[in-house]
Amino acid sequence: MLVFLNGRLVPEEQAVVSAFDRGFLYGDGLFETLRVKNGVPLRWDAHWRRLAAGAETLRIKLPFTSDFLRAQARELSRQNQLPEAILRITLSRSVGQRGYSPKGADTPTLVMSLHPAPPLGPTSPQWKLHTASLRVPAGDALSACKSANKLLHVLARAEAEAAGADDALLLNPLGEIAEASGANLFWIEGNALHTPPLSSGALPGVTRADVLAWCQSQGIAAHKTTIDLSRLLRADGAFLTSSASGVVEVIALDDEAISTSSMTHRVRTALLAAWAIEANATAVR
Amino acid sequence: MLVFLNGRLVPEEQAVVSAFDRGFLYGDGLFETLRVKNGVPLRWDAHWRRLAAGAETLRIKLPFTSDFLRAQARELSRQNQLPEAILRITLSRSVGQRGYSPKGADTPTLVMSLHPAPPLGPTSPQWKLHTASLRVPAGDALSACKSANKLLHVLARAEAEAAGADDALLLNPLGEIAEASGANLFWIEGNALHTPPLSSGALPGVTRADVLAWCQSQGIAAHKTTIDLSRLLRADGAFLTSSASGVVEVIALDDEAISTSSMTHRVRTALLAAWAIEANATAVR
Repeated sequence: MLVFLNGRLVPEEQAVVSAFDRGFLYGDGLFETLRVKNGVPLRWDAHWRRLAAGAETLRIKLPFTSDFLRAQARELSRQNQLPEAILRITLSRSVGQRGYSPKGADTPTLVMSLHPAPPLGPTSPQWKLHTASLRVPAGDALSACKSANKLLHVLARAEAEAAGADDALLLNPLGEIAEASGANLFWIEGNALHTPPLSSGALPGVTRADVLAWCQSQGIAAHKTTIDLSRLLRADGAFLTSSASGVVEVIALDDEAISTSSMTHRVRTALLAAWAIEANATAVR
Repeated sequence: MLVFLNGRLVPEEQAVVSAFDRGFLYGDGLFETLRVKNGVPLRWDAHWRRLAAGAETLRIKLPFTSDFLRAQARELSRQNQLPEAILRITLSRSVGQRGYSPKGADTPTLVMSLHPAPPLGPTSPQWKLHTASLRVPAGDALSACKSANKLLHVLARAEAEAAGADDALLLNPLGEIAEASGANLFWIEGNALHTPPLSSGALPGVTRADVLAWCQSQGIAAHKTTIDLSRLLRADGAFLTSSASGVVEVIALDDEAISTSSMTHRVRTALLAAWAIEANATAVR
C-alpha cells in the first residue's frame, strides 16, 4: 500500500513521522475522512473547506493546494488499485520546540492514506447506540474543527462496544445530544427531520450538510433542534450520517428500541444516488 | 541526541513512529514531563503512578516496568551528557484498525526524550497570565489524565503569547479557574494557600501534590478552593507549580497586577531544596 507523505507516495512501512511531531505529542492537527468511489474522493470541496477552516483556527498553513491534493488522492487510489476506499487526510503542525507553544513549528506534515470502506448496499445497516459517560464540550471554536484530539471519541466508542452497541452517543454537559462518536444524528418526528445544532457540540458534518440541503430541495422540513435522550426515544425514527457509511439506521439506544421510519431509507437512497452521480460525472470528465 | 524508542536508544533522526500510530491520528496516548537533575529524573514514582493511572483509564498496557524505564532514563541522560534536562515520556496506543475503536491496537509505543530545561535559580521568574477564551472540561475522567489531547492548551498558550503574556489561565465552563496551560495555580490569602480542586478541571500535578504535602508538614493551611478571576485578582500573592519550572510567581492577570508575597519565595526555596536532596540522595545510592 502506498501512502502520500509530504508530497511523495511512499510504501506504507516508510510512512513515518518524527516522534517529535506535535500531532503525536499533543494531537496538534486535523483530519478529514472521505469516501472514495470509482477512484473519486467524494465531496472533496466540502471536506477541503472544513480542513481549511480548521487550519485557520489552529493557524496551521496548508502545505499543498486543494487541486494538487485531490489529484494525488486519485493517484493514490489508482496506484493502490483501490477504487472503493476510505481516504484519510491528516494535517499536523509537525515538529517545533518542546512545550505547548506552537512558535517555530512552521513546516506542517500532511499524510493521505487509503483504508477499507464499509459496504454501501441499498439496505441500511441497523445500529444500536450506547450513551457515553464522558461529555463533549458544547460548541466552542475547537468543536467546529475535526481535530486530532479524539481521545474522548475513542473512549466513548470502546465503552459502546463493551456494552454491545455499534457506536456511542455523545452528550454535552447540559445533557443535550451532540452527535455519535463518528457520525451526526438525525431523527424524525412526523414528516420533519431534526438534527442537533452545532451549539450542542455536533461536528459540522459534510453528510449532515448534504442531508439538510436535500431536505430543502425536496420541501421536507428540517430543523436544528436541541434534544435530550427521552425525546430521541420517542422519535418516529433516527439515523446517523457520515462520509464513511452514508446513512445508518438507529434502532436502539441503551437497549431501548427506537422506531424505524421509511424516511431513513429515502434519505439513504437519495444520498447514495448523489454519490454515484458525483463519482461518475467526475470520473468521465 | 539519543532517544529511547520502544526499548532501544536511537539517534534523534531515527526516532520515528508510523503515520498510522493512533497517537498521531487521534492523540490516543499519554505523557509525562519530569525534571532531570544530576542525571536523576525527579519524582519518578509520582509521575509513574499518574502515567499508570492514565494507562488504566485509557486501557493501554504499559510495555515496560517502572524500574526498567527509570534506568533507561538515567542512561539517556548519561549518554547524551545532559545531567540537567526535561525528560518527556510519551505513551501511545500505536497502530490499530482505522477508526476510533481501539480494538486490536495492543502494542503500545513508548518514547523518552530529553529537552533543554528552564533555569532554576533561587529567584523566581515572574509571569503574566492571560485568560484563555477556550474553556476546559470540569473534572471528568479524562481531565485526570495527562493525555496527548492538548490542542486546547496549545491554542490557549498561543493566544496568551499573542497577548504578550507568559502562560494562559484556563477556566472551566462555570468560570472557575482550573489551571494554567502547563502548570497548576496556587494563591495566597493571609497565611493560607489555596489551589483549585481537581473538580474544577485542574490536572493532578505532581508538584501541586508536593506543595500541598509541604504545607501540611509546615503547619501551613492549604485549601482546595474554587475560585473565579475576581478573587484571584484580590489575592495576596499567586504562583504556578510545574515539574519543569518548579514555582513561578504570577505578577499579572490580563494586564491587572497581582500582589506578590514572600510565601512564593518560601515555597520555591523549599521545593528546590527537596529536589536537590532527591537528586543527590538518589545519585549516590
